[in-house]
Amino acid sequence: MRVALDAMGGDRAPTEPVAGAVLAARELGISVTLVGPHDIVAAELARQHPGSLPLAIVDAPEVVGMDEHPVQAIRRRPGASMNVAMRLVKEGTADAFVSAGNTGAAVAAGLFCLGRVAGIDRPALATVFPTAKGCCLVLDVGANADCRPVHLCQFAVMGERYSRLVLGVAVPRVGLLSNGEEETKGNALVQESHRLLKATDLNFIGNVEGKDLPRGTADVVVCDGFLGNVVIKLAEGIGELTFTLLREELTANTISKLGAVLLRPGLRRIKHRADYQEYGGAPLLGVNGVVIVAHGRSDARAIRNAIRVAGQAVTARLHQSLAASVPASEDGPVRLSP
Amino acid sequence: MRVALDAMGGDRAPTEPVAGAVLAARELGISVTLVGPHDIVAAELARQHPGSLPLAIVDAPEVVGMDEHPVQAIRRRPGASMNVAMRLVKEGTADAFVSAGNTGAAVAAGLFCLGRVAGIDRPALATVFPTAKGCCLVLDVGANADCRPVHLCQFAVMGERYSRLVLGVAVPRVGLLSNGEEETKGNALVQESHRLLKATDLNFIGNVEGKDLPRGTADVVVCDGFLGNVVIKLAEGIGELTFTLLREELTANTISKLGAVLLRPGLRRIKHRADYQEYGGAPLLGVNGVVIVAHGRSDARAIRNAIRVAGQAVTARLHQSLAASVPASEDGPVRLSP
Repeated sequence: MRVALDAMGGDRAPTEPVAGAVLAARELGISVTLVGPHDIVAAELARQHPGSLPLAIVDAPEVVGMDEHPVQAIRRRPGASMNVAMRLVKEGTADAFVSAGNTGAAVAAGLFCLGRVAGIDRPALATVFPTAKGCCLVLDVGANADCRPVHLCQFAVMGERYSRLVLGVAVPRVGLLSNGEEETKGNALVQESHRLLKATDLNFIGNVEGKDLPRGTADVVVCDGFLGNVVIKLAEGIGELTFTLLREELTANTISKLGAVLLRPGLRRIKHRADYQEYGGAPLLGVNGVVIVAHGRSDARAIRNAIRVAGQAVTARLHQSLAASVPASEDGPVRLSP
Repeated sequence: MRVALDAMGGDRAPTEPVAGAVLAARELGISVTLVGPHDIVAAELARQHPGSLPLAIVDAPEVVGMDEHPVQAIRRRPGASMNVAMRLVKEGTADAFVSAGNTGAAVAAGLFCLGRVAGIDRPALATVFPTAKGCCLVLDVGANADCRPVHLCQFAVMGERYSRLVLGVAVPRVGLLSNGEEETKGNALVQESHRLLKATDLNFIGNVEGKDLPRGTADVVVCDGFLGNVVIKLAEGIGELTFTLLREELTANTISKLGAVLLRPGLRRIKHRADYQEYGGAPLLGVNGVVIVAHGRSDARAIRNAIRVAGQAVTARLHQSLAASVPASEDGPVRLSP
């Protein structure tokens, strides 16, 4: 097992990605190829004293910035660390790709370099959402702003497969995100998607509402990438606000500070459950290879977890399994949302 | 000032609506007409010893259930408390309508009975969302599942007006909910709406993301009713989950229980800020009259706050002001989402 890691991806690159690779190699025994400008990556790696860990460096002279136009950056810079790392996967030199860099660019690099699984029109970015009962998988969360019903069906199939093979849910409950539980609810896209999903052999539990995500009513929640992106960013923002307010109240006066000390272990457990860093990044499902996009703010532990998830997807033969079971397609070539 | 209150609306009707009317009359000096089956409402009112408060009862023999099909229920039951209360507003016997009942039915009753403000194709349901800085107004949150760009522009105008006249924001910042800040982000609806909104004289700050809602980046956040509904229900669900987890941790053992006692005032302040009951319900904007829909779980205090907000909207001459300033319309007759 070898994972190609974009050493230059993320707000804290190369320090945190390199440190994450060291953690993954040391704690999980996964071989990691660090991809980025050789001297920069080698210097960073040397600082972290990797000893004889299974780490290698592949040179990539260029980098895609966090704010660059994804498609243009990927097209114009073949020597960018993302492109080079993705090619290692295509050639079979690596088994999976991990980056905490520009999400749109990682999606574009995955699509252009690896191509789509046969039968999948629109690869989708999926993310794990913490719930009362554990977690659910939400997709698409940003790869496709405008979708057709057949795309949502493909997301459902890919999500079900990931939930089963990687997250270990025996019979994932698949829900369609809507503005009401009844079959008649939803916008035009959702109403038609509901009809199609009912005809599949998935364990489709019907429409789910916004409040069903944190409740854990479904294991897989399907939506278009515009809605999914708003949903995960809203959840992130509410989490931030809640912890800001808590911090203010916990440090408001001496009595509350004492209370905070007594409650520290419990509050830490809550924060831990809500922490995206624990969940190891978002898989790009539907491309011919394992691609995991970690959060831009990922620290070493988050990168390690993303590498762990990549390893699980490889072991589970996720994309090979996807290729065997997708509904008929009606779509033309890949179109990327801007 | 007289508010017509649907005494039979909500999960806890008639007890909580009647108690809320008593609170509003006693604390705010607002006259309330309780609308519902006379004997039931009179008996409930008697139990609450209203004394000489300015409360009246208007008989309405029928009730719309929380789970009924909204449009059908409103059309088939002219004697339903919602229809009777709405007619009091139309006739000028009351200045505003308040209900904690079936939201879809209240929207339908408002549209059918009061009609739309000239120039507004799609009345929208707006709700106040708690933020780090206070609150923002989000609309539409459920009246219109499928929208066109011109509808989102009308929502923006109505929201700006409500924010200014009722919430007291001097120059409301209007944002368009999208999957990225850049003008090129968004689905087809959002991209075209962005173009239209830029051409208005609103204080349009461009696209805002999900995380911007709790951050308070905008005072008014515009979206279609499908997205808005998912957003507010997700926020509600995350709030529920957070407080469930907190409660578990606060009562986990003797030490944490002691910590909880010390932190009680602070935690209460947080809960208070996140509590929809404080914000007084969702205005239906764009109909010829003041219509406020409170949460189905509203208690007496929430009903009182909804009546307070209704009074503020009447005093501010909200819908008269709306009629004077809406962009040109291209739409036909009112279409209700199912």
